[in-house]
Amino acid sequence: MGKETYNVAVVGATGAVGEELRKILAERQFPVDTLRLLASERSAGQRLDFRGRQIPVEVLDEDSFGDIDIALFSAGGSVSARYAQAAVDAGAVVIDNTSHFRMDEDVPLVVPEVNADRIAEHRGIIANPNCSTIQMVVALKPLYDAAGISRIVVSTYQSVSGAGRRAMEELGRQTAALFNDRDVECEQFPHQIAFNCIPHIDKFLPDGYTKEEWKMIQETRKILDDPEIRITATAVRVPVFCSHSESINVETRNKLTAADVRAILREAPGVLLQDDFQKSEYPLATEATGMDATCVGRIREDDSVENGIHLWVVADNLRKGAALNAVQIAEILIRDYH
Amino acid sequence: MGKETYNVAVVGATGAVGEELRKILAERQFPVDTLRLLASERSAGQRLDFRGRQIPVEVLDEDSFGDIDIALFSAGGSVSARYAQAAVDAGAVVIDNTSHFRMDEDVPLVVPEVNADRIAEHRGIIANPNCSTIQMVVALKPLYDAAGISRIVVSTYQSVSGAGRRAMEELGRQTAALFNDRDVECEQFPHQIAFNCIPHIDKFLPDGYTKEEWKMIQETRKILDDPEIRITATAVRVPVFCSHSESINVETRNKLTAADVRAILREAPGVLLQDDFQKSEYPLATEATGMDATCVGRIREDDSVENGIHLWVVADNLRKGAALNAVQIAEILIRDYH
Repeated sequence: MGKETYNVAVVGATGAVGEELRKILAERQFPVDTLRLLASERSAGQRLDFRGRQIPVEVLDEDSFGDIDIALFSAGGSVSARYAQAAVDAGAVVIDNTSHFRMDEDVPLVVPEVNADRIAEHRGIIANPNCSTIQMVVALKPLYDAAGISRIVVSTYQSVSGAGRRAMEELGRQTAALFNDRDVECEQFPHQIAFNCIPHIDKFLPDGYTKEEWKMIQETRKILDDPEIRITATAVRVPVFCSHSESINVETRNKLTAADVRAILREAPGVLLQDDFQKSEYPLATEATGMDATCVGRIREDDSVENGIHLWVVADNLRKGAALNAVQIAEILIRDYH
Repeated sequence: MGKETYNVAVVGATGAVGEELRKILAERQFPVDTLRLLASERSAGQRLDFRGRQIPVEVLDEDSFGDIDIALFSAGGSVSARYAQAAVDAGAVVIDNTSHFRMDEDVPLVVPEVNADRIAEHRGIIANPNCSTIQMVVALKPLYDAAGISRIVVSTYQSVSGAGRRAMEELGRQTAALFNDRDVECEQFPHQIAFNCIPHIDKFLPDGYTKEEWKMIQETRKILDDPEIRITATAVRVPVFCSHSESINVETRNKLTAADVRAILREAPGVLLQDDFQKSEYPLATEATGMDATCVGRIREDDSVENGIHLWVVADNLRKGAALNAVQIAEILIRDYH
């Protein structure tokens, strides 16, 4: 790309991830010339702040991408399916936050701390992984490099912000309703999420896994470039506004002690070690929110299996799980691939 | 025992489990002659309802157990340590809901659906397992009998009622504070529990496991009477008022298909199968609360390991996880051991 500044489009600008994208582009002083905010007709006309300027939200269509260098898509898979190619045809590189292209062989699926080198292979589209996958691979890649990984069993504790802004509002509304003795209404979730746990994220597949669980399995294999890793996942929505937590049980190929894991993760890119149980220190969703790092703690050896290790991994799903990861990809793109 | 009616003492009568004990003794028409409600000095003098009569709460001391046939303890381990023997010496059978006696070789650790026969071995004290253990073994025992179990990996989603009445109040207070822009105060939990997940229940042990995790491992081995089962656990507190959820990954010794597991659990004592993902049916904490059954769903084959099976298991931790299990033990005691 090799320019001083870049024209950037955000597709899905009014959503929870869209808001985070604007914040992070500003925070990290991404060299934006023009920022074009795109959304559906429903949201058009709103003005949103970027670096102190009020930018109007425009209606997304095939002609939205003239002069755009980088298009950040986070408006759902069907929007990416319909408009990403138009952005590529107009000369933009698309960084897509939806699941639509992730498993395409031609599309790199990138977490910068893990496989930034795959960005070189892009043909116009780079996919951002699923939020629960990103934080897991940031924590596991250094262990994979040190000792190999043969199996992963993960159970998630996912915040409602992963389901978007209206899902966050629904948790707030249901909680208030219960405190005021009013009936709870469910629109964004299949059941009450306030004071409940719902083991159902995205749709069910015929084998009883959910699509969310399937994504964690398939995307992790693709990102670690190892189809042999055995992975299983249970994805659960919990009444937390922001940041996903994960209970991860790993079998490494070679033995790692808990001390080894701590030493490795203390130096690992994008990881913040929070692991001092004597001080009740471990990662927490409330503390991870707003942070860039993937927080790791509760590191324990699991002697129920050979080379077993437990980790508790928490990250801000809107930042590292989505917007930050996308902007990090864009930063590498303009730094290394002009 | 062989009487028509029995004198029953509830130690810890004003706590969350104590309240549930009174409710369940009445609901199940347990043949109570006198109900003696015992608590610390702080609570003495209160009057609590039992079958429409107001019963005064008395101060617990060594002389509280004259004429008592069955003493149900749920006032914490230190209270059981101090007073259980006095109850036994006075001729009562103690059913203890705390962790104090659970791992004693001389004390049966009983879940009626799993190992009711061990009640015969009691020498005055019968222990009620930990809440998260009870619901796990109710769900797993039928699979253990059908196919053997070699390994269990469990991550829990435990409600605040497991930490008692004041913990429930704290979740309510913190939630209200956040909705009113006030500061959150933490007394019962080491960190904010409202809209958060805390991977820390009971105290930490030197190897980095918590006592709660250790209990799930050791108690499960004792109840299934199989010290060879490999088990690991991660216990997490979630902002749910009542009922614990568990994500359980099991390796059976012989292959069970998901259909086999469903067929077995459909007939299993104490289990309610809720497993129709096409209707978004699976166990939920909000629905399990107030129920006697241990609810099981999200049954899936896990092909990341030989003979892997996933289960999502939810039960009311105050009922099956504590009070109901204790009363079921008492029922067997008076039916079979007079």
